[in-house]
Amino acid sequence: MKQDGNALRTQRTVERILAGSLRLFNEAGEGNVTTGMIADALDMSPGNLYYHFRNKEQIVEALFRHFEARMEVEPRPPADAAQAMEDLWLYLHLALEAIWEYRFVYRNLDDLLARNRRLRTVYNRIVDRKLAAFQALCTSLVAAGAMAATVEEIRALSRNVIVVATYWLNFQSIRQRREDVSADDLGEGAYQVLSLVAPYLRGGARAHLDALSARYID
Amino acid sequence: MKQDGNALRTQRTVERILAGSLRLFNEAGEGNVTTGMIADALDMSPGNLYYHFRNKEQIVEALFRHFEARMEVEPRPPADAAQAMEDLWLYLHLALEAIWEYRFVYRNLDDLLARNRRLRTVYNRIVDRKLAAFQALCTSLVAAGAMAATVEEIRALSRNVIVVATYWLNFQSIRQRREDVSADDLGEGAYQVLSLVAPYLRGGARAHLDALSARYID
Repeated sequence: MKQDGNALRTQRTVERILAGSLRLFNEAGEGNVTTGMIADALDMSPGNLYYHFRNKEQIVEALFRHFEARMEVEPRPPADAAQAMEDLWLYLHLALEAIWEYRFVYRNLDDLLARNRRLRTVYNRIVDRKLAAFQALCTSLVAAGAMAATVEEIRALSRNVIVVATYWLNFQSIRQRREDVSADDLGEGAYQVLSLVAPYLRGGARAHLDALSARYID
Repeated sequence: MKQDGNALRTQRTVERILAGSLRLFNEAGEGNVTTGMIADALDMSPGNLYYHFRNKEQIVEALFRHFEARMEVEPRPPADAAQAMEDLWLYLHLALEAIWEYRFVYRNLDDLLARNRRLRTVYNRIVDRKLAAFQALCTSLVAAGAMAATVEEIRALSRNVIVVATYWLNFQSIRQRREDVSADDLGEGAYQVLSLVAPYLRGGARAHLDALSARYID
């Protein structure tokens, strides 16, 4: 029983450290945050923090793994074109929400990945999976007659979808001095991404997407 | 005569400092470079550097103004649709080249703009001009019958064009661990941006763009 209690306490402390670090990294930029500042913010002794994470890099790596897990959700294989649009819409909201929750990753991506090969591996794995998942979705939409696009068009489209989904919230927060993101911002991001896909859609899928998008048009 | 000689020497020193700072900022990230490191790299006394720039922020601001000037070139109003595609293609190469030349700006954009309101003003002015110029180009293509797009489609398209053009080289260098960019990389970036525009083009403009793009398709 005592052993279990300790394990539970340890797990809670680890989660507290990660949540506090994520908040500080997002607010101030990872490069401007020290382990001392994290311990202070959590009202925790530096020794207690070091017991769980030997240095800041271990915290960053743990947060990257959490981010990867959040990004692993994929839309279902579409039953029909209308459902595929609904799924893609919902999925983009979830992905953008995760990107915003871990936005420190995108504030200093070059610096983070340049100094740590493990982070680079995780990051490229996330992007590779997203590219593959989106290309598979497009291929099934083409097969269902809901999309008209060549293999090369799907390739270029997939890359643009990843770039816009990745950087949209960052771009918007810089443009508008936002410190926080609202449900509307996520919807606008999803709308920007889906507007990349729209010109390739045919028939009911296009009409369904237009209906989903209508609320974001001024 | 002596006065002119001094003015010329001062101008050359200022240009040397800016070129050296730009190189170091791009290589190491602006946040990791001190004025001492810049003076060292230029084999210049810190006193001489301080005589021209009181602190690093003044160097960053001067580089931002240079970047803005580089980005001010716009494509001509199109004489016809084929020429509009040629101009847009060339223009995107030049814009991507400027973005790569000043890539430190995009490595730490959030941090740079968060701490300095003047930089934020310059950055948003650049983006506003690019959005307006691209929307004007689309409107003239629609008027010429070379593009089919609603006002709302042009609005969403313009935002996506800016985001992809802004972040593409950054995304690619992270993906491929590139330290430098080749003419092919700029061409690939222009191709990604133009693939956003392609589905809205009609007739000769679309055929012309496909011909320009053909060399970037595997």
